[in-house]
Parts: sequence; structure tokens; C-alpha cells
Amino acid sequence: VAAHAGVAAGSVGEDRASAPLVAVDCNGADLGPGEVAAGARIAAAQGARVVLFGPAGELGPAGEGVSVVDAPLSIAKSADPASAVRASPEASIVQAARAVGQGGARALVCAGGTGAALAAGLFNIKRTRGIYRPALALPLPVPGRPVVLLDVGASAEARREHLVQFAFMGAALARTVFGVARPRVGLLSNGEEEARGSPLVVAVHGELQARTSAAAEAFEFVGNVEGDGLTSGIADVVVTDGFTGNVALKLMEGVSQQVLWGIREAAMSSARAKLGGLLLRPSLRGFRDQIDPEAQGGAYLLGLRRLAVVPHGRFTREGFAQAILRAERGTREDVVGQTQRALARAGALREAPMSAPVASLPEGE
Amino acid sequence: VAAHAGVAAGSVGEDRASAPLVAVDCNGADLGPGEVAAGARIAAAQGARVVLFGPAGELGPAGEGVSVVDAPLSIAKSADPASAVRASPEASIVQAARAVGQGGARALVCAGGTGAALAAGLFNIKRTRGIYRPALALPLPVPGRPVVLLDVGASAEARREHLVQFAFMGAALARTVFGVARPRVGLLSNGEEEARGSPLVVAVHGELQARTSAAAEAFEFVGNVEGDGLTSGIADVVVTDGFTGNVALKLMEGVSQQVLWGIREAAMSSARAKLGGLLLRPSLRGFRDQIDPEAQGGAYLLGLRRLAVVPHGRFTREGFAQAILRAERGTREDVVGQTQRALARAGALREAPMSAPVASLPEGE
Repeated sequence: VAAHAGVAAGSVGEDRASAPLVAVDCNGADLGPGEVAAGARIAAAQGARVVLFGPAGELGPAGEGVSVVDAPLSIAKSADPASAVRASPEASIVQAARAVGQGGARALVCAGGTGAALAAGLFNIKRTRGIYRPALALPLPVPGRPVVLLDVGASAEARREHLVQFAFMGAALARTVFGVARPRVGLLSNGEEEARGSPLVVAVHGELQARTSAAAEAFEFVGNVEGDGLTSGIADVVVTDGFTGNVALKLMEGVSQQVLWGIREAAMSSARAKLGGLLLRPSLRGFRDQIDPEAQGGAYLLGLRRLAVVPHGRFTREGFAQAILRAERGTREDVVGQTQRALARAGALREAPMSAPVASLPEGE
Repeated sequence: VAAHAGVAAGSVGEDRASAPLVAVDCNGADLGPGEVAAGARIAAAQGARVVLFGPAGELGPAGEGVSVVDAPLSIAKSADPASAVRASPEASIVQAARAVGQGGARALVCAGGTGAALAAGLFNIKRTRGIYRPALALPLPVPGRPVVLLDVGASAEARREHLVQFAFMGAALARTVFGVARPRVGLLSNGEEEARGSPLVVAVHGELQARTSAAAEAFEFVGNVEGDGLTSGIADVVVTDGFTGNVALKLMEGVSQQVLWGIREAAMSSARAKLGGLLLRPSLRGFRDQIDPEAQGGAYLLGLRRLAVVPHGRFTREGFAQAILRAERGTREDVVGQTQRALARAGALREAPMSAPVASLPEGE
């Protein structure tokens, strides 16, 4: 039931002709599938090409750069996404992931949660050759430029070789999608010294030091960073296991909300404070924009044969538009191929001999 | 060179006569040993009895409730506190810990950092019988009442039985020092469901559920809490390993500072915003007081035969006074004995048979 839209005239249209098609699962957003579709239209107006999967009646008509597939079944709220994906081949996320896996679309955006995206992605798009495990990377909204934290929860635990690969995966994301020429990569630990950390972290530290010399152009390894290194700007990418990363992410949300809530309460506590809050509000808006998670597009699912982006379910259309535009950018810049080639040069691909000629590796296409 | 002060007349004096003596290492504070001594005098004015260890020339005279031991050697900035403690028996922290270990004093306060306190405490005060490992517990300054997070870094990794004990240790601290009748204890994880978490966390979850039925009066186990559970108030105590806890603590500091810094910047960005900030300031002060870490006294070193408190080196005299008063309170309320008896009832003491009669256990004295 796909209704493909024609390509518009003019420069946006010319860009669009070469734009990689992005498959968008519209189910699962707090504001409903229509909000995701509205975001897709914003992205399409900037040259993106999207195919929407969701209840067609709520997605609006196809149009320039926007096609629609009627896929009303949602598994976004499933308690067991992996089983739901296997049991529901007609679910919107499964159809969207299948469109990417079969090559009709080249990137996936899923508003229906990371669990469903991960399960559908592993099943239908599959891992990149040589990658042990996918990771979920979140660009933390830090003023200045985002800090990519990974893994924030694709796996609850990790082995040494996983964390080593995560460093390369995060660096490629920072380079391609966030435009950092040579990302500084840090390893999250309970102390800055090389010897500090769990045995896992100490082992990864040593290996990253060794491997970066073989792949110095991929990133600069800045060593261990502590928790406050996530906001201080000393690293562009911070690597950790999915347990710690998920705790950190939720904690950041909690602390930010608590502080902003405390300030709002303070600004309601007296007539004088209310006036102060009113006068301060326009300036505070600038700061809130800087730390607005919607500007970063959401979480990035790395390690599959195609890039997948998972905007937060509570995003508005602006956030969904960002997710689509960044998925497209990452695909154009070949985040998958860049990751794999850097891992090959560093000898860190799974079962890949150090001496494998780079040219013989698939380019992520 | 101890100069003991006489006991003052009046009710403070009567309280003081029964007050447990607190040994205070004054070296290591950012504002110098004199600031710690000033804090000790504030605590003494409220009935505490302290013996100060540090450079006598900077500590001021002995007085009511305050005695002074000249111990100028500081190992607070040592990169290897464990070696420094063994090599420097005359260091202020070692003398202070020895005074506690030998029974002359009954609680330790150390302004010279957690590494030195931990090493000197293990060496001179020693672990409580049946406790596997000490833990560092930090009451997070959350509006309302503090949330005790442990371990925040005494050990970089933990086994199942350690985390189980930490739950009892943290609960006893919340009860005795922070006055929570039946603390709600949560387990930090990457999801609320029982099955979520690292294998370690899943195992600890199961054991805490089983053990709490045998020690229901010690605390209420509320299950897994995510990162935002540290600030939401759903638990009074949150248990985690020292790696994750340390990352969480530093991250909280970083995010709070970043948000407060962003707001300060916003309040400087225009004449209108400056006026707004000025009007809002008195109300914001109330909020900042609520999240002031000095009010909680610092970090608590649990699992030794005596309570030790480690105020942050950047504290002012008010924070050092709190540390001393809370160390005294924890000692009066017998946090060590309460911990051990609850562990005994739950059958979670090291090598202690489930059937050991509680009365035969040492009471932490």
C-alpha cells in the first residue's frame, strides 16, 4: 500500500533525487503517529525522502518526498519486544526494518522505543560483519556540542572487545553525524588514572591505547573520564557498558529535571521572585534550547548494516525531523562503512586477521 | 601533646559528659586546618566532644569540648594513601584513626579525603566482624530528605554478598543518622523490572527479596530503581557497586554545576535578565540551601568497627561541624551495632551461621 510521491523541482528536488530513503516507524510517539508524520514533512521540506509506516489514516497524505505504508499494528508498548517482533511480521517497526534490510530504504527511524528498534533491527537489518554487538549511542545535550555516550542500554553487560568496538563506533558517529573531525574518545571510570576502574575498564584502557596507534586518524583516545567528564567537554565520545550508561543517562535526566523544577518553584515563591522569573525567562529559553535533547535527534543504534535512529517517544515534530535528517546525514557520510574500515585498520573486527586488506572489506553498502 | 579541655557547666555540659569523643583529622581541607577546627568549635558549642589532629599552630587553643594533638604531617594529597598510611604512623589521619581503634575516641572525621580515611580506617580501626568490605555511603542532597547512595567508591567492583551487606549498612545509616524509621532500599539498575540488570544485580535482587523477609524491620526493599530514582524520592537508600556509584556521584555534581552555571550565564546576558536574576536570588538561595551537600556532613565510611565520616575537602566550617555532629549521632545511635544485628538476623554476616544467637554477637562496642 505504498504511495510514492514525485520529486519536487528545484535544488531541494535535486538533492532529494540522491537522498537515501529513510524508513520511519510512526507508532509509539506520545503525541501520536501524526506528530511523527509532521516531523517527516519538515524533514522532507529540507530535502529528505521518507517512507512512513503506521496507521495511514493518521499519517496524512503522501506528498513531495513522503510516501506512506499503512501499517497500523504497533508493538511499541510490548513488554517483550524480541518476541513481539518475531510474532508480528506486519507490525510497523518490523515492516520498516524489513524495508531497510531488503535495501528499499537505507536508514531506519523508530519512534516506538529502543527495545523494538533493537529487536527489529537485529532480526531484519542484521549486524555489520565483524561487529560483535550493536550499541545504543546517545548524544548528550551539553552546551557547545553534544557528547556521545555509548552504550546506554543495548546490552546490560559488555566484554572487553565490545567496549573497544564501541569506541570506534561512537567516533564514527561523532565524525559523520555531528561533524567532529577527530573525536576525542574517553572511557568512563571511577578515576582518571590509567590504573583506576573495574578490571574490565582497566583492560579496555590498555587495549584502546594500543589500538589507537594503528588507527590514529579514527579518534584521539583521551583516557579515563569520570562522571563529570560527561558534561565538562573534555571528550566528544564516552564509552561505557550498557548498564552504567543507562544509569548515567537516566540520572542526568533526573538531576536536570530536579534542578529546573527547583528553580521554577523558587520563581513561584513570592511576588518578587515571580517578577524576577518573568524577566529572566527569555534568556533562560536560550539555555534550555542548548540542552534540548530534540536537537540531537535521539539515540543512535550502531553496529547494524544500516544506521537506525530512535528519537524519544515524547519528542515533538521538530525532534522527529532532526532524527530523520541525521539518519540521512549518517547514511550519506557512510557511518557504517567508516566504522568498519577503522576497526579493520585497528585489527579490532571480529575474527578479522590484522593483515586483512582493507579494500577487500565490504564498504557497508 | 594533648591538652584536654574541661567540661562546661549547664545542659550542654551535661550532654557533653556523655558525648562520644570524635577524633578529627584537620589536614587536607581546601580552606586549611583552621577551618576544620572552626567547624569543630561550632560542633562543640552544640555539645560535641572532639580531639583535633593537625598542625597545632593552625588549630587554635583547646577549649570547652575541644582538645588538640599536634600532628602536622599530612598525607591527604598522597597518590597512594595505603602506602602512605603504612609508612607514616605519625600522619594526622593515622594518629586520629589509631585513637579510634584503641578506644580513646569513638568516631572518626577526616577532612583529608576518602582514600586516606579508608586506608587508615582499615589499618587502625578494622572491619566490623562479619562485614566483608567497607562501603562509602553518600547522602545525596535531594530536596526533602537525603538519599543515601552506596558504595560511591570504596571498591571498584563488588560481589553479590557485598551488595547485600551494603543494603543493610545503608539502611542502618539512614535510620540512625538521618532518622528514617524504616528506610526504603532500592537497587540501582538499568530497568525497574526484577529481571533487568547485570547478572550481578539480578542475583542481588533475588537475595535481597529473600533476606528482607528475615529482617523486615531493618528496611523495606523496593526493588530496582533507575538512575532517576536517585533524585525522585522513591528510595531512601540506593545500593550499587563502587564503580557505578562513583560515576553517578561525579555525574550528579557535573550536571548540577552545568545547569546552575547555565542559569547564571543566562542571568548575565542582558540588563533585563540581570534584574530578573537579582529579584530571584533570595528565593534561589532557599533552593540552593536544600541541595547544599555540606548539610549532610559528607560521605560515611561504613563497615568499620567505628563510624567514620569524610566531609568534602572543599567544605566550610559549617560542613565540618555537621560531619562531627552526625558522626556523634551515628555513634550514640550505634549504627555499627544496628548494622551487625540486622545482618545477623538476615543470616548475611560473613561466615556466621544462620542460627547464631544474636545476643552472643559483639554489639559494635
